Amino acid sequence: MPLPFAARLNNVETSAIRELFKLLGKPGIISFAGGFPDSALFDVAGLSAASQKALAENPGAALQYGATEGHEPLRNEIAAFLQSKGVQDIAANQLIVTTGSQQALDLLGKTMVDPGDKVIVEGPTFLATIQCFRLYGAQVIAAPIDAQGVQVDRLEALIAEHKPKFVYLIPTFGNPSGAMLSLERRRRILALAVKYQTLIVEDDPYGDLYFGDAPPPSLLALTPEVPGSRDLVAYCGSLSKVLSPGLRVGWMVAQPDLLARATMCKQFSDAHTSTFAQATAAEYLKAGRMPAALAQVRKVYAERARAMGQALRRELGDAIEFTQPEGGLFFWARLTGAGGKLKDAGELARRAIEQGVAFVPGAPFFATNPDTASLRLSFATADVVKIEEGVARLARALG
Amino acid sequence: MPLPFAARLNNVETSAIRELFKLLGKPGIISFAGGFPDSALFDVAGLSAASQKALAENPGAALQYGATEGHEPLRNEIAAFLQSKGVQDIAANQLIVTTGSQQALDLLGKTMVDPGDKVIVEGPTFLATIQCFRLYGAQVIAAPIDAQGVQVDRLEALIAEHKPKFVYLIPTFGNPSGAMLSLERRRRILALAVKYQTLIVEDDPYGDLYFGDAPPPSLLALTPEVPGSRDLVAYCGSLSKVLSPGLRVGWMVAQPDLLARATMCKQFSDAHTSTFAQATAAEYLKAGRMPAALAQVRKVYAERARAMGQALRRELGDAIEFTQPEGGLFFWARLTGAGGKLKDAGELARRAIEQGVAFVPGAPFFATNPDTASLRLSFATADVVKIEEGVARLARALG
Repeated sequence: MPLPFAARLNNVETSAIRELFKLLGKPGIISFAGGFPDSALFDVAGLSAASQKALAENPGAALQYGATEGHEPLRNEIAAFLQSKGVQDIAANQLIVTTGSQQALDLLGKTMVDPGDKVIVEGPTFLATIQCFRLYGAQVIAAPIDAQGVQVDRLEALIAEHKPKFVYLIPTFGNPSGAMLSLERRRRILALAVKYQTLIVEDDPYGDLYFGDAPPPSLLALTPEVPGSRDLVAYCGSLSKVLSPGLRVGWMVAQPDLLARATMCKQFSDAHTSTFAQATAAEYLKAGRMPAALAQVRKVYAERARAMGQALRRELGDAIEFTQPEGGLFFWARLTGAGGKLKDAGELARRAIEQGVAFVPGAPFFATNPDTASLRLSFATADVVKIEEGVARLARALG
Repeated sequence: MPLPFAARLNNVETSAIRELFKLLGKPGIISFAGGFPDSALFDVAGLSAASQKALAENPGAALQYGATEGHEPLRNEIAAFLQSKGVQDIAANQLIVTTGSQQALDLLGKTMVDPGDKVIVEGPTFLATIQCFRLYGAQVIAAPIDAQGVQVDRLEALIAEHKPKFVYLIPTFGNPSGAMLSLERRRRILALAVKYQTLIVEDDPYGDLYFGDAPPPSLLALTPEVPGSRDLVAYCGSLSKVLSPGLRVGWMVAQPDLLARATMCKQFSDAHTSTFAQATAAEYLKAGRMPAALAQVRKVYAERARAMGQALRRELGDAIEFTQPEGGLFFWARLTGAGGKLKDAGELARRAIEQGVAFVPGAPFFATNPDTASLRLSFATADVVKIEEGVARLARALG
C-alpha cells in the first residue's frame, strides 16, 4: 500500500534537468550543463589549514552543538566581508548562518508562505527557488527580464496586481540569465519595496565573480539611499561559488522580526549549520586568503567567458543571440532560427548529447511563460580548449 | 509595518526551555540541563586525521557540490555500521544522509504531514520533534510511557482512534525518558505497524550509548521477524551523540518511495549535507576508530549515571522517583511530594538556579497532558565530583 504523502508534493514535478544530468556520465561528454564552480580552483591548502586551526584552537566549538543563529566568529567575519563590499552598519546579529543559501530560501518559504500566496521571481530564475517556494504552496509568477535584469515597469505592474508575499531577485549575474541589474533599476526596486511595503529577497551568490569593474552595489548596500527600504530587503549570500559549495555555508541578512522567525524555523530544520564547516570558514576568512582566492577565480572565469563568447559567435553566427556576461558562471542565449536552423533548445540539447556536448535548455527556468528557444551554457568547469571543442560540437548539433 | 508571516508559525510557541537556557551563563552553575554530549570526549585527533585524509585524497569530493542522497563512501560506511548492529540486507541505496537527524524529522514532516494530520509521539518526547511536526500543521498526540517505553495497548488504541500519518518513537534510551523499550514491545509495535499499515519512525541517536549489555535490536533490525514491516519503518540515526554533533551528520533508512520524496524535499531544503563533514565522517568510520570511541563514551557516561543515581537516592530520598537508566544521557524523574516537599518541577527549576544547579522541567516534553512533577537530568557533561555537588544543591533547592 502506498504511503499517504503530503499534498504539497503535488506542487513540484520531477525536474527535466535531473533527467538530463543522468546522461552526463557518458564518456567524453563536454559539459556546459552544471551550475557549479570548478573544483580545480578550490583553495584546498587554505581550507585544510583553516580546518586544522579550528580543531587545534577550539575543538569544542568546532565539534559541539552550536547556536542556531550561527558560529559567532563566522558571523563576525561575514559582517566584515559585507562591510568590505559597501554594506554600511552591518553587525553580526543582523545575519544568520544558513546551510548554503538554498536553506535561506527554504527558511523564507517556511517563514513567509501560506498555501496560495503569490511570490514574484525573475523569468528565468534559479530552478530550485521555484520548486522550493512551490513546496510551501506558493503560486510563483515570473517577471520578464532583459540584459539589464528585471524590467521594473513590468515588475511594478505584477506587484500591484498580485500583492506578493515577496519578490525574489538574483540582481547580479543571475542564474541562469547572467544579467546584471543596472544601478538605476536597483534604486527603483528599493523604491518599489517601500511604496508597496513588499519584501525583496536579494540572492547574491555570484556578485563577487566579476570580470572587469565591480558591479553596482547590492540592493542591501544601497538601502541607505532609500529611506525605509532596509527592513524590506532580505539578503542571501554564500561561499559556494567563490570558495567551496561543499562547506554548505551561506547567510541571510534581514530585519530582526524575520530573522528571529527564520532562526526558530532553522532550529527545527537542522538545529544549526555544521560547526565544523562554520569554524573552518571563519578561520579561512580570518586568515585573509579570500581576496587572493577571488582574484584567481575571477581571472580564470573571465578567460573562459571570453573564449565561449568568441567561439559562439564564430561557430554559431546569427543562429544564436546572447549578451556577453560581465561576471558569474553562465551564458544565457536564444536560438534565433536564422537560416532555418533549430529554434527548440530542448531538441538541441538531445542532439548535442549525441555530439558529445551538454547544456541545459532554458524553459524549465521559467515559473510561467517558458521560452523554449532559450538555453543556459556554463563556462565554469571546462577549460578554454574544451570550451572551443564543445562549442564546435554544439554547432554540429545545430546542423 | 510588520511582515505578513505564514500562519504555520502560530502553531509553535517560544520554548520555555530556551528561556531557561539563557540563565545557564551564570557563573558557577552546574548544569544537568543540556541534551548534548561532553566535548571533552570528542576524538579530536581521529577527526582531524580523517578531515586531512579527505582533503588530501579527494579534495574535489570533499569541497564540491555532492549528491542530495549523500556522499557515496559515507552511505557505504553507514550501511556497514548498521549491519554491525544487526540490520540485515541493508545497502547504501536504502538510506540518505541528513543534516543531523533533526533534518530527517523535518523531511518526514515535509514529506508526510498535511495541516490537520495526526502524529503520535511518546509522552514525553524530544521537544524539537513536537515543534518540527507542528510547523507542518500536525496535531501531535502523546502516547503514555513507563520504564519499558511506550505502553503498547494505549498506543494501539490511539492509532485506531486517530489514524495518524505516522508514529514517532525513540525506543532506546529516549530523550527525555531514558527508557528502553522491551524486546516484546518492539515486536508488538512492528505487528501494529502491519495491522494498521501505519508508518513507524524510529529515532535512534542514543542506542549505542549502553552501559551494560547491549539493548534489544532496533525496530529496523527486527523487521525480518515481522513480515511486511520493513517498508513501514523509517529509521533515523546520527553521529551527534556518539562522535560529534558539530558534523551535523545523520541518516534515514526508509522504503524507496519515501526516500525518493524525502530526497526531493532535501534538494530544496539545503541541496545536500556538507560534503566536507560527510567525507570527514566517512574517513573516520573507514579508519575503524568508532569501536574504541564508543567504548570510551560508554565507560564515562556509565560512571556518571551511576554517580547521579546514587547521589539522587542519598540526597533526595523518597522525594524523587526514577528508574536508573541503562544507557543514553538522561535521568527522567518525578517529584513525589513526600514529606510535604515541592511537587512542581518548574518551581524547583527556578529555585535550583538560585542554588547554582540547572535542569529542565519535564512538562514541555509532553505534546498533550503535561506531567508537571517530572524533570530531566543530564549526567553527560558534568564529572562525578560536579554531579555529586550538583545533586546536593538540588536537595537544598527542594528544601
